[in-house]
Amino acid sequence: MPKGKPEVVPDDGLTTRQRRNRPVLAVHTGPMKGKSTAAFGMALRAWNQGWSIGVFQFVKSAKWRVGEEAAFRALGELHECTGQGGPVEWHKMGEGWSWSRKRGTEDDHAANAREGWAEIRRRLAAERHDFYVLDEFTYPLHWGWLDTDEVVTALRERPGRQHVVITGRNAPDALIEAADLVAESTKVKHPMDAGQKGQRGIEW
Amino acid sequence: MPKGKPEVVPDDGLTTRQRRNRPVLAVHTGPMKGKSTAAFGMALRAWNQGWSIGVFQFVKSAKWRVGEEAAFRALGELHECTGQGGPVEWHKMGEGWSWSRKRGTEDDHAANAREGWAEIRRRLAAERHDFYVLDEFTYPLHWGWLDTDEVVTALRERPGRQHVVITGRNAPDALIEAADLVAESTKVKHPMDAGQKGQRGIEW
Repeated sequence: MPKGKPEVVPDDGLTTRQRRNRPVLAVHTGPMKGKSTAAFGMALRAWNQGWSIGVFQFVKSAKWRVGEEAAFRALGELHECTGQGGPVEWHKMGEGWSWSRKRGTEDDHAANAREGWAEIRRRLAAERHDFYVLDEFTYPLHWGWLDTDEVVTALRERPGRQHVVITGRNAPDALIEAADLVAESTKVKHPMDAGQKGQRGIEW
Repeated sequence: MPKGKPEVVPDDGLTTRQRRNRPVLAVHTGPMKGKSTAAFGMALRAWNQGWSIGVFQFVKSAKWRVGEEAAFRALGELHECTGQGGPVEWHKMGEGWSWSRKRGTEDDHAANAREGWAEIRRRLAAERHDFYVLDEFTYPLHWGWLDTDEVVTALRERPGRQHVVITGRNAPDALIEAADLVAESTKVKHPMDAGQKGQRGIEW
């Protein structure tokens, strides 16, 4: 349903075009693993629009999302070479943020998460990207490493037309409240229930 | 959790490795739009493994998934040129299946769906791809255009190690029963509820 008809037309003083083009804050939460997978699926569409994509992985292990990272890095290189699609930046906390020269805080995950968010806040203020994936970003919020109110305010007040997708379990209520789109994935059946371990190409 | 520990170890006579490498039949169903998005996110990981990817879109409008299609065609071309990742084929019912010379059945969606499934069945028998996305494939099943029992039997008995992801609402019970992984996406909040129409780069 790419061009569906909304059920309600709000009295917000905006034209349909203005309303359509409002930047989206999406939160993918819930117990199932498709949360990030769906965020990267959305990023494919963003890439095809020629948008600048910034991925920020708030995970400890740098081994996660290797498949997605390789594919998006390839799409980013394709953009450099041929102009097709948009540019891609991929940053991960697990190996130390690539813009940071500090290597002393490697074991302080809270400090690393704060450093990641500080950079994202700077980029939002500078309108650096068109589409942000903040992968597993709910955890530093849930664990209190970041101030949820401060994060939500910065997201709400971000300038221009910057789309943000946040993934992870236990999204704080204030973030859900601020989001335009919230998707919750539910497990109905999973191979691990039948004693099957995760496999290459399917789970990572 | 790329390498989680399963809660149960089944008494199925398989080694952990054999069990891990069993091909997966996944069904993404439910009312929310992330179903296909998550399937294409999975396909990114498959591409990075160098797997052969076959996408079959069972939708009427050829305009759907333009972003994903462009990105995967780009990844497929990158494979042709550099050997990176795997090959990609993308077929869609909406413009007539690309392998078919018939153009006379354009308005007969049931016949087109049957022709698509017949080709997929041939490819499964020939082990043509490693990873299949059968996008919106639940609809021809739900509408009775295809025989669900015949489809489920062909999927269950597919040879080798071929992963299949099926998306769409109203997945028939027999398909859910046969699947190894079933993910249901639930809408918590969507911009259309606030009167916002779908927008380029976000919804298509």
